[in-house]
Order: sequence, then C-alpha cells, then structure tokens
Amino acid sequence: MLLAKIYIKPKSTVKDPQGNIIQSSLKDLGFLNIENVNMGKYLEIKLDTDNELTASEDIKKMCDQILTNPLIEDYSFVIEKI
Amino acid sequence: MLLAKIYIKPKSTVKDPQGNIIQSSLKDLGFLNIENVNMGKYLEIKLDTDNELTASEDIKKMCDQILTNPLIEDYSFVIEKI
Repeated sequence: MLLAKIYIKPKSTVKDPQGNIIQSSLKDLGFLNIENVNMGKYLEIKLDTDNELTASEDIKKMCDQILTNPLIEDYSFVIEKI
Repeated sequence: MLLAKIYIKPKSTVKDPQGNIIQSSLKDLGFLNIENVNMGKYLEIKLDTDNELTASEDIKKMCDQILTNPLIEDYSFVIEKI
C-alpha cells in the first residue's frame, strides 16, 4: 500500500485572497512578523499498489486531469510506503 | 526568514465528503486502485524571523487559535530556513 501526499498551492503570479484574509486576521491577533500567507490544498490518496513508479505516473495524471487547475495552481507530491 | 508549511486534514473519525467525491471522480476516470482520499488544507506562512523556536510556538498558536478546527481537524507543520 502506498500513500501519496499532494500539496497544491496558488501560483506566485496569482492573487490569493484567502491567504490575504488569513494574513490580516493573524496580524489582528498580534502575529506581526508575517511576510506572506499562501492558502492551498492538501490531499492524501491511499493506493492499493506497491509499484511506486506507476503510482507516481498515476498521481501526476490525476493532478493534471482533475485535482489541480494548471493555469492558476502549482503542485508537488511525495509517495510513501505504508 | 523562515517558511512554515502547515498540513491540515480531517480527523480520521470525521466524514470527508470532499475526499469521497474526489475518490469517486477518480474511479470514474479509470483510477481503480484508490483505497481512500482525504482532502485538507495546505498553508505556507513566511515569517520575518530566524528564531525557529519562537516561530514554532507561534505557528502552533496560530493553528490552535484560527487556522484549524481542533474538533474535526488534525494538523502538522515543518519550518524551513529560506
């Protein structure tokens, strides 16, 4: 069994209104040394296989086809044996 | 400057309807060996400090106070020098 951990975040050239709201809320709470906040998505996908190579290819296809919007989001992932 | 990477996901005892929808969409696309999908949030917070100890305490406070709902979510984070 493999676990893919996928990190999706807005491209640096894209506005991130959620991140901005969180940043200003944190400043209001007294956290003053925050330079920037980016809000993205985190996915864990459990795969019933032990073949890391095909799993990696599958995860890449999933990200490109359905999980991310390549126009506005970047992603990365790691695959772990569980 | 430090970068905190925060991973938030639904507790395993909590229903994850977003994860379920993604799982069934991926199965419809032909990815048949998926055991489970969990959908969470991924935050990157850039901090204007080099003190990893206080940064770590601050990130913990932010998570507990505003970034997560401890009743239904678990979180973890790492802090990197940038």
